[in-house]
Parts: sequence; C-alpha cells; structure tokens
Amino acid sequence: MSNQELVVLGQGDDDAGGCCPGLLTAPLEEDQAVDLARVFKALGDPVRLRLLSMIASRSGGEVCVCDLTPAFELSQPTISHHLKLLRQAGLIDCERRGTWVYYWLVPETTDRLAGILTRPAGEPLPERTASAGAAS
Amino acid sequence: MSNQELVVLGQGDDDAGGCCPGLLTAPLEEDQAVDLARVFKALGDPVRLRLLSMIASRSGGEVCVCDLTPAFELSQPTISHHLKLLRQAGLIDCERRGTWVYYWLVPETTDRLAGILTRPAGEPLPERTASAGAAS
Repeated sequence: MSNQELVVLGQGDDDAGGCCPGLLTAPLEEDQAVDLARVFKALGDPVRLRLLSMIASRSGGEVCVCDLTPAFELSQPTISHHLKLLRQAGLIDCERRGTWVYYWLVPETTDRLAGILTRPAGEPLPERTASAGAAS
Repeated sequence: MSNQELVVLGQGDDDAGGCCPGLLTAPLEEDQAVDLARVFKALGDPVRLRLLSMIASRSGGEVCVCDLTPAFELSQPTISHHLKLLRQAGLIDCERRGTWVYYWLVPETTDRLAGILTRPAGEPLPERTASAGAAS
C-alpha cells in the first residue's frame, strides 16, 4: 500500500512525551492548524465516522473491507474513497492480503487528538459556561 | 444571541456520567455519526481551529471579536461566519455587549470529544500498529 499519511500533530518535533500543539492552551500556529484541520476534516463525515468506529471497535483489531461495505448503501469505490481519506489522515492503516484489504485503527492518532482536546489537568469549568448555557 | 447549537454527542440521553457514543468502542449509530460529524467538520478548517485555540487559551476565558480579527487576513464577515459555525457546533458561545461580541469556549463539548477519542482505560496499543508503521 502506498503511504501518504500526513505527518501531523507535532510528530517529529517533540514526539516522545506525547506532546500536542494544545488546541486549548495556546493559539495554534498557522501550519499546525492546517495539519490538524485535515485530520478533523477526515472525521467530519458520518460515513467515515461509522467506518472508523467499525474498524476501531472490532475485536481482533482489524477488519476486512468485505465486512465494512455491507453496512452501507454505497458503492465499493465510494467506501474505498472514504477509507483512503481516513488513511491519509493517519487515522487508520491497511494491508492487502490476496483479494481483500484489511484495515485497522492507528490509535496513536486518536490518542493525540484526545490529548489536544483535553484541558490542562485540574482546570475547572469556568462559571460563565454554566450560566451562559442556562440563559440561552 | 440566537441559539442554534446542536444537541450532540449523546446529550439528553445519558448525560450525567459524561457518557459518550464511544467512537472507538462500538460501531456508531447513523444518527450519532451525523451529529458527531457536524462537530468534527466545524473543527476541520484551519481558520476555525485557530479561532477556537485563540478563544480557548485566552486567560480570563473570553475574547472580544475585535481582538480576533486582526490575527487574520480575512474580512470581518468571514471571521463571523467561521465563529457562527463553531457556535452552531456547540464549541463556543457568545454574548453581545454594546458594539462588540464576546466569545468563550464551551469546554463540555471539547471534553466530550476528548472522551469519545479516548481508548478504554488500560487498553494497550496493538502490536500490529508498531510493526505496520515500521513496514510502511
């Protein structure tokens, strides 16, 4: 399989500590935002989210594409296109074995996204949010 | 401010425990995927990510729109459009005071996204990922 996965989310910089650009802690640089937006954009589609959840939740850790397509009323090429976008975003990877391609989650990428969206430890919810939510 | 925020991510179902559809633990239902995709789609744009990070990281917790626009080479209406999409996704909220509109993060939404993207506690990275990454 050719590999076009993006190097995103600070990989290659200070990777060892699982450090993230920190969406919630400092303004993102423009290039960080471009890379990160590509991953979120890959998640911004219901079919891709369902595919990702089917792949990620499969016991055994991998899914044959032949087990994914029957869940959708979409053509095989359309499903393959969605899978390609998830792969290019670094969210899944795959391997061809004989007739079929097998997919699995790249948990490092979802871990990084989770980290990016996590507030610094111990930071309380601002009071504003609660009151604003109630007033709206 | 009119309120068109989406009710997403399982809010209204079993909200008390901070429970999430669980992107990584079970196949998403179609309607869950539609709701969730809308939030990720809002994050799938570099300008919106930068706006969100600027709002989220501001000490004091809120930002005047007049402090956001100078960071971008974009018109005020364009910035306002991006802010509206973030607000409709439930990621930020706002209030008009006199001339200006003030924005703040809705941390409950980012908390939920982080939860959705977090693997069940203690689940190790599959061996496949490491070897596949090295081979690709």
